[in-house]
Amino acid sequence: MLNNKSDSFDSMETRYKVQFVNSLIGHKPVNLIGTIDSEKKTNLSIVSSCFHLGANPALIGMIIRPDSVPRHTLENIKETNSWTINSVQEEFIKKAHQTSARYPKETSEFNATELTEVYIDNFIAPYVKESIIKLGLELREVVELKINGTVLVIGEIKDFHIPTEIVSKDGHINLDKTSIVSVCGLDHYNTVENLIRLSYAKPDSWPEEIQ
Amino acid sequence: MLNNKSDSFDSMETRYKVQFVNSLIGHKPVNLIGTIDSEKKTNLSIVSSCFHLGANPALIGMIIRPDSVPRHTLENIKETNSWTINSVQEEFIKKAHQTSARYPKETSEFNATELTEVYIDNFIAPYVKESIIKLGLELREVVELKINGTVLVIGEIKDFHIPTEIVSKDGHINLDKTSIVSVCGLDHYNTVENLIRLSYAKPDSWPEEIQ
Repeated sequence: MLNNKSDSFDSMETRYKVQFVNSLIGHKPVNLIGTIDSEKKTNLSIVSSCFHLGANPALIGMIIRPDSVPRHTLENIKETNSWTINSVQEEFIKKAHQTSARYPKETSEFNATELTEVYIDNFIAPYVKESIIKLGLELREVVELKINGTVLVIGEIKDFHIPTEIVSKDGHINLDKTSIVSVCGLDHYNTVENLIRLSYAKPDSWPEEIQ
Repeated sequence: MLNNKSDSFDSMETRYKVQFVNSLIGHKPVNLIGTIDSEKKTNLSIVSSCFHLGANPALIGMIIRPDSVPRHTLENIKETNSWTINSVQEEFIKKAHQTSARYPKETSEFNATELTEVYIDNFIAPYVKESIIKLGLELREVVELKINGTVLVIGEIKDFHIPTEIVSKDGHINLDKTSIVSVCGLDHYNTVENLIRLSYAKPDSWPEEIQ
């Protein structure tokens, strides 16, 4: 058993520690972030730091490290107040991962990785054509987290494009019917299989399976 | 295709919208949060809002909605400055989900769900014995997000307990070798299968599979 006494954080080599700590909370969502700057140069960046912040209004949070590749992403979001979140599917996992390479700002990751830039309904930021879930967000707030210099970017979902057949009558989206992947740590992509949907929990009974 | 023109957020019934928006970013990590108050009453709460905030120091963020069940969690964290994050495995998924029922504060979800409270190395908050990954956190910061009244709780990992056999030589944790689940939306638990690990991306070549 590994623990902080036998194998302390302080004794870990930097890259080992980054891999290790990134894996600790479990399976993470992975998405492609599409942006454009005021001169119409586009950027595409893979992130595993998006999280649900609220449904009403529909808000998504995203953590960006200032020294990481998505710094172009943050610059573009601040310039245009908008970005897209696009799902990552098994079929184009290598292309999606490749967007994390340190390309110069004048190179669009769309061109470099051959993922397809698409514009829908006059939304300013580019979507990824290959992604089956596409979200268009408007910037609401940028919160600098002084504790470690990361930035929390908060956006409101202004548009979405989702195949009708994966949405249940109650609004739930059956991601297990798609090839959308999850990520563990920095670089380990996994596929997902249906286990069980459970009913709203009440103190006096056990939850039941939702069919 | 569903989009915000044909099926606008404004037209969605509240519970539909909550299900829908919670599913949009993809597969989320799911964990059990163990806490204790100053009178030694314990609490256990399932959350899907933990995210990686940084490796050095090792920081985890967690979003708590003030009106949600984990309000006891937030009260306890503020009282004792500590909490635990515990993995959720397929074998006890119903018990884990049941911790989201609205029990009164005097009822410990450990007792109500028959998950086992365990204390390790004098860490103040209780761990879940059944969880194969156990993290002990110390409170670093509570950030109120005025945009929607949620609270961002930031903690530093002070201890961890992880089976040696699932940790690779480079620090990566092979969650696919465990039965740790992910969650989609509010209530849909999924199992995860290995797809591929990819090498660090460089601009002049495609990533390769890490064996």
